[in-house]
Amino acid sequence: MAALREDSLAAAAAVDERRLCDRLDAMARIGAIPGQGVNRPALSPQDIEARALLLSWARELGLAASVDSIGNLFLRREGLDPSADPVMTGSHMDSQPKGGRFDGIYGVLAGLEALEAMAAAGVRTRAPVEVVAWTNEEGGRFPPCTMGSMVFAGARTVEDFADVRDNAGIRLGDALAQTLAATPDAMRRPPGGRVGAYVEAHIEQGPVLESAALQIGAVTGIQGMRWFNVEVSGESAHAGTAPVSLRRDALRQAVAMIGALRELTADPADVTRFTVGRMLVTPNSPNSVPSHVLFSVDIRHPDAAAIARLGEAVEQTCRALAGTCEVTVTPTLHDDPTAFDPAIVTLVEAASGAIGLPSMRLPSGASHDAMYMNRLCPTGMIFVPCERGISHNEAENAKPADLAAGARVLAATLAELANR
Amino acid sequence: MAALREDSLAAAAAVDERRLCDRLDAMARIGAIPGQGVNRPALSPQDIEARALLLSWARELGLAASVDSIGNLFLRREGLDPSADPVMTGSHMDSQPKGGRFDGIYGVLAGLEALEAMAAAGVRTRAPVEVVAWTNEEGGRFPPCTMGSMVFAGARTVEDFADVRDNAGIRLGDALAQTLAATPDAMRRPPGGRVGAYVEAHIEQGPVLESAALQIGAVTGIQGMRWFNVEVSGESAHAGTAPVSLRRDALRQAVAMIGALRELTADPADVTRFTVGRMLVTPNSPNSVPSHVLFSVDIRHPDAAAIARLGEAVEQTCRALAGTCEVTVTPTLHDDPTAFDPAIVTLVEAASGAIGLPSMRLPSGASHDAMYMNRLCPTGMIFVPCERGISHNEAENAKPADLAAGARVLAATLAELANR
Repeated sequence: MAALREDSLAAAAAVDERRLCDRLDAMARIGAIPGQGVNRPALSPQDIEARALLLSWARELGLAASVDSIGNLFLRREGLDPSADPVMTGSHMDSQPKGGRFDGIYGVLAGLEALEAMAAAGVRTRAPVEVVAWTNEEGGRFPPCTMGSMVFAGARTVEDFADVRDNAGIRLGDALAQTLAATPDAMRRPPGGRVGAYVEAHIEQGPVLESAALQIGAVTGIQGMRWFNVEVSGESAHAGTAPVSLRRDALRQAVAMIGALRELTADPADVTRFTVGRMLVTPNSPNSVPSHVLFSVDIRHPDAAAIARLGEAVEQTCRALAGTCEVTVTPTLHDDPTAFDPAIVTLVEAASGAIGLPSMRLPSGASHDAMYMNRLCPTGMIFVPCERGISHNEAENAKPADLAAGARVLAATLAELANR
Repeated sequence: MAALREDSLAAAAAVDERRLCDRLDAMARIGAIPGQGVNRPALSPQDIEARALLLSWARELGLAASVDSIGNLFLRREGLDPSADPVMTGSHMDSQPKGGRFDGIYGVLAGLEALEAMAAAGVRTRAPVEVVAWTNEEGGRFPPCTMGSMVFAGARTVEDFADVRDNAGIRLGDALAQTLAATPDAMRRPPGGRVGAYVEAHIEQGPVLESAALQIGAVTGIQGMRWFNVEVSGESAHAGTAPVSLRRDALRQAVAMIGALRELTADPADVTRFTVGRMLVTPNSPNSVPSHVLFSVDIRHPDAAAIARLGEAVEQTCRALAGTCEVTVTPTLHDDPTAFDPAIVTLVEAASGAIGLPSMRLPSGASHDAMYMNRLCPTGMIFVPCERGISHNEAENAKPADLAAGARVLAATLAELANR
């Protein structure tokens, strides 16, 4: 393994734990909810406020800001070779409805910290380095998740998602237009483009690093994921008068389907992940038989054959239990398992070792924007531990020293990549 | 059976089908939804608009309006004996979220038509006659149902319900204050008071009268009903990283509970009614394990012992399936089966027969405000057919001739009771 360049180590050494944590605290106040959590839905007023704060820091650092048609926000530090493909890092600023203060935003601010550390250490790079805040990674408000990176990678277009509606009926296209209008200073750019490499820092969201007492994880890949919306349509009726045998009760059938999907995905090895996280009942009144139920299905597995088998069985399982209701099963996301570039995984390990931080290799249980960037360029991720592996929860927590360690490895890795 | 008084028959004859249906049409425009339906939640702007329209008609007819602290609205035609207890009729103006244009509002407007018919026929009564529009009979927005009559009958107080919240988090107390502020012309009165008798007209909401090809049902009573809110609390977690075996998934346990409640209430005779009509999931995001689920349980049965047995088993059934979640089962309504006063049932039959309309006796599958009035005074109901028994559905429908027939029987019955 080759040794790291001096200036890569200098960039790592210039990372400031206090500055990074102060910025994390400032962001955590935007959309703060009780229990130290954050509710910052994609393209919401809180998202707009977070973008404005990030742009104010970018201005102080002299970074050039640009934004694409899905709202992905880019902050660029120029390199010595204007024709070189940029090295990118970043993550997302949106959160789950009851989310934590590190998920996503850590990767954006660790990227910003890496750029500031390079500047502080007087490190010039050949290629430009860009920090990106991807739009709507969570999909908590507008399914599906990783929307911004999906559009950047050309897997889907903005138009594909314009008519997606949140639980309040608001169109994504309208919320996006509001968000873009609130960011007049950032230069508009088309989605996509050439990228030299992409490295994303993130809290692990699982218990592995904490159990191993390690600060750094070199992420090898991301498990496969299938998402579906299941819509069950019956007929509303009076809860007191309609005989149960004659009802077309959408909730009754939805409950039966969820039970059968649970059996389908039962896994003694506890590797398969099955979640029904969203459910909307119409008319949602105690004494009306439900006429319509929409529920989400999220299935994940690291093995390509396993996830394919489970994903293919969802529609048939639901159809078999529709009774006298109608059922529509719509796939909303299909991600096969991802393997990151071995050279990037090795570089993250090398950077970590060079600055005295032991690391381990591990896969990601969660999906990330790195999944789509892996289609465009050599890609990897850096994980840092989080308390008890808890995430998508207000109680999500991480230690300042671990967060700074991740930013140091990121700074060294980015400097190394941008000087190749 | 004694013959009806001449002026009772004159009142019945003066009922105007066209006028009644025009008023029903005008009300159906307030909160109209596609498919000929109505969405007029209790204490909403639509409810306020319906109240204003009703009061405008009352003013034209010279009726005195008053309103009590839960928002029940009374329209009074004075009798010859100022000390006599009023004879009352009425129903409700709120609807289910996807409700029909006859449920409730028909009873209010049939009552108004009865008063106008008495005036047109020059019928004076000894006792005053009052039409009442009860607040929040449906409970679709603010559970439980029959709230206005419950408070009027002294079974509960306004304060008991002030903190009930709708699905948007709005307090009933605040919505009620807005509604009362929008009704400045109606004199304030305390809830309750002496009532001579109560007769409510309503569409059947079941298929019995239509099948029997009869226009009038003399209602003998109302089946028993138990309502519960079941709240399941777990812990939010990341859908990709949290092992299924370690999750405290509130939706998974709620689905298991609903399945078990369905088995508990399974009834080959198809008499038991079991409905889960309302379900709220938190945080309701596809890739977060649900931390909290609230669902409603509605169980009905005409037999007192059967409904008691089922009602008592709900909490234990849910507790047994809570897994590692916590569960709270809160009874929100407990109505034993109701038997109406035999003298009123007989009078409705007599009035129907005297004006040439054959009738039948039948029980009510739905609950009505008459249930609580039965605790205060001799009470009965008049049913008219509705198409295919469909109700709590936009497609609810009823024939003008049937609606007028019900109003005629109501006018004769009220005049008879008010002249005793």
